[in-house]
Amino acid sequence: MGIDDRAPGRPRSREADAAILDAALELLIERGAVATSIEQVARRAGVTRATVYRRFPDKAQLLIATIEAAYGDPPPTQEIRDVEHLLTGWASILASPRLRRLLRRLYGAIEDFPEIARAYQRMLGQQRDQARRNVFERARDRGQFPPDTDSDVLLDLLTGAGWQHLAIQPDNCTVEDTERFLRAVLHQAGYRPDGYRQQLVPQGQQPARPGDKE
Amino acid sequence: MGIDDRAPGRPRSREADAAILDAALELLIERGAVATSIEQVARRAGVTRATVYRRFPDKAQLLIATIEAAYGDPPPTQEIRDVEHLLTGWASILASPRLRRLLRRLYGAIEDFPEIARAYQRMLGQQRDQARRNVFERARDRGQFPPDTDSDVLLDLLTGAGWQHLAIQPDNCTVEDTERFLRAVLHQAGYRPDGYRQQLVPQGQQPARPGDKE
Repeated sequence: MGIDDRAPGRPRSREADAAILDAALELLIERGAVATSIEQVARRAGVTRATVYRRFPDKAQLLIATIEAAYGDPPPTQEIRDVEHLLTGWASILASPRLRRLLRRLYGAIEDFPEIARAYQRMLGQQRDQARRNVFERARDRGQFPPDTDSDVLLDLLTGAGWQHLAIQPDNCTVEDTERFLRAVLHQAGYRPDGYRQQLVPQGQQPARPGDKE
Repeated sequence: MGIDDRAPGRPRSREADAAILDAALELLIERGAVATSIEQVARRAGVTRATVYRRFPDKAQLLIATIEAAYGDPPPTQEIRDVEHLLTGWASILASPRLRRLLRRLYGAIEDFPEIARAYQRMLGQQRDQARRNVFERARDRGQFPPDTDSDVLLDLLTGAGWQHLAIQPDNCTVEDTERFLRAVLHQAGYRPDGYRQQLVPQGQQPARPGDKE
């Protein structure tokens, strides 16, 4: 017998919610957005199709809710303390085989379900991206990035590096290797944890460039 | 009547080759790798399935040949003159709506057809990537990048920025806007077309950082 939701708001209904979202997440990761159907989700969750449709009018809405549930609520701005915190957090996401597959599926869905990517960005991305931009701007103001650093460009650059990592690195990569990859990208983008202003340059010496060995 | 290849090596056979690869490219862009079948390709090309299978033992081989044909032969190393040349070439690829869709389909295929991504990299990517790395290394040695620039990191960073551009920018973006995006990313990554060594810094002044306004 399957789970149903004849008593909305009751435990049985919350159980159905969770079963539907779990099933949808599994199917999204296994098969991708195009190959996942409401019918398959209902079958795997052990509920009727009507139970799914009562909650989610179409597949896009279902998949958006699925992604939202998979990520949890986005952290409030102040939760990302600094670039180091951002780096280790990002590395742990990129080193999770399950999230790697989900993120690639999200990218793969852009073509056939642009509304999923848009909704994802609207619901989760904007707040998280703003938190990240704030972190970059505070770091720049502290002298950890060159003064003309553009936080939008930096965010695109690091997000892009994430897509590239998802494309070329094996899914069993370690958190340490992933952090090393992201750190190398941020170093190339001018990040210096100890700040530029701490370099001591004697008079008459060549001006320091960020790449100079100290 | 469809095209067939009963006379191999003759014009009719070359015609069938072209029709198959054209049809496969259209279907790959429209539907993606998973939803494209040999049968659909044969039908759209106006050939029999046997005609397709005689050339390509499976879908992966067919799609690899399709991508190879779509891109043309990779340019030899010396054809990318410098970073500016690389930038404008990359921008023109990223501003082509057809190539944008193809590239997103390629990314989307990583999950279900990793062998396509691997073969693509083996056949086209390695030589092109080496040419790009060489360009970055020459630019670094000329002082257009900080001296500790890592050409592998730079290539991942710029390739990633391309994936991010494909994900967030509209497909009717102009070449100019695309070039501006890539240039901003390269600027953040330390690229200075006029070189770092041309900055004049009087004795006793704060050392120049790449981001300082000149």
